[in-house]
Amino acid sequence: MQSESGGSSWPGQVTLRRLADGREIRYYDDRVTESRVHAAADTRPLPEPPHAGELRFDVLTGEWVTVAGHRMNRTFLPSAADCPLDPTRDPARPTEVPDGDYDVVVFANRFPSYAPDVVGPADAGHPEVLGPPDRPAVGHCDVIVFSSDHAASIVDLSAARLRTIVEAWAQRTAELSADPAVAEVFVFENHGEEIGVTLSHPHGQVYAYPFLPPRSAQLIERARRYRQATGGNLLRDVLTAELEDGRRVVLRGEHFSAYVPRAARWPVEVHLAPHRDVPDLAALDDAERAELGGLYQELLRRVNRFHPGIEHVPYISGWHQAPTGGDRELGRLHLQLFSLLRAPGKLKYLAGSESGMGAWVNDTTPERIADRLREVGA
Amino acid sequence: MQSESGGSSWPGQVTLRRLADGREIRYYDDRVTESRVHAAADTRPLPEPPHAGELRFDVLTGEWVTVAGHRMNRTFLPSAADCPLDPTRDPARPTEVPDGDYDVVVFANRFPSYAPDVVGPADAGHPEVLGPPDRPAVGHCDVIVFSSDHAASIVDLSAARLRTIVEAWAQRTAELSADPAVAEVFVFENHGEEIGVTLSHPHGQVYAYPFLPPRSAQLIERARRYRQATGGNLLRDVLTAELEDGRRVVLRGEHFSAYVPRAARWPVEVHLAPHRDVPDLAALDDAERAELGGLYQELLRRVNRFHPGIEHVPYISGWHQAPTGGDRELGRLHLQLFSLLRAPGKLKYLAGSESGMGAWVNDTTPERIADRLREVGA
Repeated sequence: MQSESGGSSWPGQVTLRRLADGREIRYYDDRVTESRVHAAADTRPLPEPPHAGELRFDVLTGEWVTVAGHRMNRTFLPSAADCPLDPTRDPARPTEVPDGDYDVVVFANRFPSYAPDVVGPADAGHPEVLGPPDRPAVGHCDVIVFSSDHAASIVDLSAARLRTIVEAWAQRTAELSADPAVAEVFVFENHGEEIGVTLSHPHGQVYAYPFLPPRSAQLIERARRYRQATGGNLLRDVLTAELEDGRRVVLRGEHFSAYVPRAARWPVEVHLAPHRDVPDLAALDDAERAELGGLYQELLRRVNRFHPGIEHVPYISGWHQAPTGGDRELGRLHLQLFSLLRAPGKLKYLAGSESGMGAWVNDTTPERIADRLREVGA
Repeated sequence: MQSESGGSSWPGQVTLRRLADGREIRYYDDRVTESRVHAAADTRPLPEPPHAGELRFDVLTGEWVTVAGHRMNRTFLPSAADCPLDPTRDPARPTEVPDGDYDVVVFANRFPSYAPDVVGPADAGHPEVLGPPDRPAVGHCDVIVFSSDHAASIVDLSAARLRTIVEAWAQRTAELSADPAVAEVFVFENHGEEIGVTLSHPHGQVYAYPFLPPRSAQLIERARRYRQATGGNLLRDVLTAELEDGRRVVLRGEHFSAYVPRAARWPVEVHLAPHRDVPDLAALDDAERAELGGLYQELLRRVNRFHPGIEHVPYISGWHQAPTGGDRELGRLHLQLFSLLRAPGKLKYLAGSESGMGAWVNDTTPERIADRLREVGA
């Protein structure tokens, strides 16, 4: 299946194929090019895709924990020659991407935390009075590869490529949201060996959760109470307050602005929010999609320059989107971008207070973070 | 001030002194020994103790975040010769402990996240409609040193020493709970360079929080709903269910039992709970205090043996206690002991799903963790 961009101004094309074990793979080309049919077949003798794990209810916190025992043996820091995200340049050494070239490619994770069509757990577990029974970890885990060049960095990719990446984020958000088993779609990126990233090839991920993740559940509850008390939208009013205050604003675009939240938890943290109320990436219009990629790159560049003397800062970025089902009007798209690096060679570890109690202590101030992110601007 | 143990069977004594900047230091001797007066003065020209930071309300989660900018420059992995937890053996090189010898010593952290008598933050911050104003980070942060021997390990200390450590935990819990500014006392230990522990000398910590930490707030809310629905005590009924089920039970003592929680989040995790309903360490009776130290050591020994081929496993342990004010009857003492090490050389990093969404994925099963913790038992 190949489709053009329809009414969107994105000049690219999408081609849907399947891997040997039935997983879907989508090629997103920066431009419509009839010769790029991505027809190469996956010749590997793959076993059927692994079953996902199960969801167990933590009765002490009221949160679902995903138990995915099959992930223990996943690929860990392979050598560059064995990178599974490279295109298949040599048929004798097939990778996860059958074609010999691509711009952006998205496929279902081979070691997923959540997978479609899984069977239920065998064991109901604890007495029902303590909490709901176990559930299968139904959902989706995508890998999204930003370039066929193993050594590329997202900050150096072309504007056209960033536009394609934004398009893939938006389209996958729409497609995964259509699955009634999915409660929220999380588009995110883990970057840097320092935080345990097992593949250095530039890539991100998409998790489509079968439950509202704890942070989202908290946020939706806070937004609900705020709406009841004031009639307002919490996330919009936070953005407005930050733009009026100005002390923690990092950049102001035409359609998005970035600020350090006034209760930042991490040594480096910045949020990016659209000026217009939109629930998710799929709801962004053409002008917003066109601006977004450049702003994201600019924020990543500044994070890389944050600590003098080092060039690459490990980071985590995640797009918080509205729930796909109920309470959709209480959510509002925003990016959370943060780093655990508090100084060159010094990571912020989550120790007893954070890991055991959920009580964060930040060793710097949000205002200092914002000052530095402005100072290292272009 | 020196006091004996009163009606308790603990055979030791406590001596209270002050450091040069006014911070309290308490010497806990394993036995009453009249000659040990710990009278050595702190001769350092210390500046006044640092002010604590401030609490900022995170309007997106409803949680307090502690902003403690002064901690950025705290002591980080000093060489063994400069260890601030050693006794002062050479007056020319004074440490945090003025006396030349001690058994267990507890003193207020020089770089605290929470401190008593702090002034309020200068800036109220955000529009009041978004959340409560900033508060000073009032509270207490203790360091508790388990041995004067820099190279000692808690698993090798004598039974008498463990009894003294339990006594210090219990007494400090009682003393800090008496401060009306304190909402919960957290006794914990961060162990291992792999998780960023800045001092290798065997020690633990106590945080007396001025707010109910997020995990406790969740637990109390869950316990409240459970009591309303069933009339039962959630934590006691979880213990009972685990002991009846048996699959995840690691050890059964006379007064305490240990089990892996059925929604364990970490690659190694075990909880230890008293058989009797007690709110906190201060409420343990003599028989319970006498048994506790040995069981704690036994659990730490098994955690150290968890992964074949390595001798020391980094861990975090924390005592969850009842709130000091309201809802005290909903809390129940339990220890959470866990490690981020999922295999030799492989840490579990908290990446996008955990850090950004609060959604934990465990790559092993609680039953496998329990099997291993039983297998490596004495």
